[in-house]
Amino acid sequence: MAVYTHLSAEEMAALIARFDVGALVSAKGITEGVSNSNWLLETSGPNKTRARYILTMYEFRIELADLPYFLSLLDHLAAQGCPVPRTIHDREGRLFLTHPGQAGEEKALALIQYLPGISVSTPTPRQAHAVGAELARLHLAATDFPGTRANAMGVAEWQRLAQACGVDGLAAIDPELAHIITTELPRLAKAWPRDLPTGVIHADLFPDNVLMQGDVVTGLIDFYFACNDILAYDLAITHVAWCFADADNSFRPDVSQALMKGYESVRPLTSAERAALPLLAKGAAMRFAMSRAFDWLNTPADALVTRKDPMAPARRLTYYGANSGVFA
Amino acid sequence: MAVYTHLSAEEMAALIARFDVGALVSAKGITEGVSNSNWLLETSGPNKTRARYILTMYEFRIELADLPYFLSLLDHLAAQGCPVPRTIHDREGRLFLTHPGQAGEEKALALIQYLPGISVSTPTPRQAHAVGAELARLHLAATDFPGTRANAMGVAEWQRLAQACGVDGLAAIDPELAHIITTELPRLAKAWPRDLPTGVIHADLFPDNVLMQGDVVTGLIDFYFACNDILAYDLAITHVAWCFADADNSFRPDVSQALMKGYESVRPLTSAERAALPLLAKGAAMRFAMSRAFDWLNTPADALVTRKDPMAPARRLTYYGANSGVFA
Repeated sequence: MAVYTHLSAEEMAALIARFDVGALVSAKGITEGVSNSNWLLETSGPNKTRARYILTMYEFRIELADLPYFLSLLDHLAAQGCPVPRTIHDREGRLFLTHPGQAGEEKALALIQYLPGISVSTPTPRQAHAVGAELARLHLAATDFPGTRANAMGVAEWQRLAQACGVDGLAAIDPELAHIITTELPRLAKAWPRDLPTGVIHADLFPDNVLMQGDVVTGLIDFYFACNDILAYDLAITHVAWCFADADNSFRPDVSQALMKGYESVRPLTSAERAALPLLAKGAAMRFAMSRAFDWLNTPADALVTRKDPMAPARRLTYYGANSGVFA
Repeated sequence: MAVYTHLSAEEMAALIARFDVGALVSAKGITEGVSNSNWLLETSGPNKTRARYILTMYEFRIELADLPYFLSLLDHLAAQGCPVPRTIHDREGRLFLTHPGQAGEEKALALIQYLPGISVSTPTPRQAHAVGAELARLHLAATDFPGTRANAMGVAEWQRLAQACGVDGLAAIDPELAHIITTELPRLAKAWPRDLPTGVIHADLFPDNVLMQGDVVTGLIDFYFACNDILAYDLAITHVAWCFADADNSFRPDVSQALMKGYESVRPLTSAERAALPLLAKGAAMRFAMSRAFDWLNTPADALVTRKDPMAPARRLTYYGANSGVFA
């Protein structure tokens, strides 16, 4: 939850005047975003038409060099009909602006389209089907996107994070976590596939990052982990994120089947992709277990950001190890 | 800044179904509110009409017994044409609902109308004039409001807070603060007027709590300090809140004159009220100096809530002491 930087109404209005979006009518700081500040804006255009936008100020972590990739990817996907927010270019055609931060450093700011919809917590099979289909459409729509970005959260990064945490650090969180990671990480690194179809992936499609109205996907958002990597790995990430109950981490077979069916209704998997899914899903679970374990050890308990439990994805990893048949 | 309680989309939709406001289309946690959680909601009604609301969950501090006063006051003022958000009653006509909190305790929830507008940081004289006039209209519109609520932040509370802080505590914040409070508080308590016109007052009309579009007031919000007290004291509070520059605490005479003129364009002050204004303004400054001093000493430095500097209102108090002519 975040609005790290205060922007006065006067500063906000001056920023908005740099875009051709009408005059500022309302601005509410919203609690979405972990490493950036976000405001929901309303503007009034000609004939009293009203439009809404999300203004994002990038605070931490993000490499400014990556912003053109993320923001032009939104443009590309929106133009192909994917339900992603368009980037609003400023009057000079720029994808983002800079604004002096409180400590004098430059902060980047981007304006994107607001999309309606709410993020579900307990998806139904029909909702999972719709998300699977949208993910496959995104993969197809991005085929001719010219940008490329390496996956900064790939196998090498899991290994670096594991090293940084240390076995003792992992065991301090939970002895089972240390055991799972030290056992599985070398196996995954060794077996990780190198010849599956690749393309642009979202890489973080948790329910938080999907807006829905009923069974319809109205928005895929938060592309700040998007990169070029194995397409089926993106499906595996989405599987880890959608197919277990938050409350007790139990596997939800009906949601799993619906997600897979939805994906394949748009982009059928090759037999090599299908065969790799159990491994890819273990890798996806490892990715979140490792980043959460690192954050757990490196975030003060009283920080603004809520720490996420690394044991949830770690237990999903174990589940995939024992139940590779879920993808059959 | 706050959303203290997580409400899932499913819980939110079930709550909204208890009101006749259509189906939930969007819900964004917003960073407004210190002692409550707030969401900006959008719903879709018949013929695809869209409407927006603020859902508030009361987390701390508020006395549930006071909620009917606050919420029915909004109804009363809105019906009189004041730019305040209407309270949306549920299908059974209730002003608020209860919902189980995470620790099993009941939390109160209210749905109010969303109002457009932004909160200015550096008001112009024309904006101050408009705010003065709206404050006077509020005072007149509330004349026949039947509810009553004592001012929980009156002179007796300033004394209690001063006692709780202790001279050493105040001096630890700033020796000048201890000096100002120990000198001025007994004087104010002794001289506080008892025979000025009273009525419903907002009691916290800082620029944060006013929504504007250009020079027009589109919303007076956050009535959680509203109570029955001296009307001219409410003008004095608004004066403390609007007539000094945030950056250097310097007095802004043009804004002060405009605020007073705006108020008197709707409700001329009696000569007794005018004569009391320097004292009332010192009291208003004392009220915020004391509550901020107490919060300063009792809020962990790393808490979610930003501590506000008690020296800003304390210096305004000193300014009023030396410049009683500003109200002449």
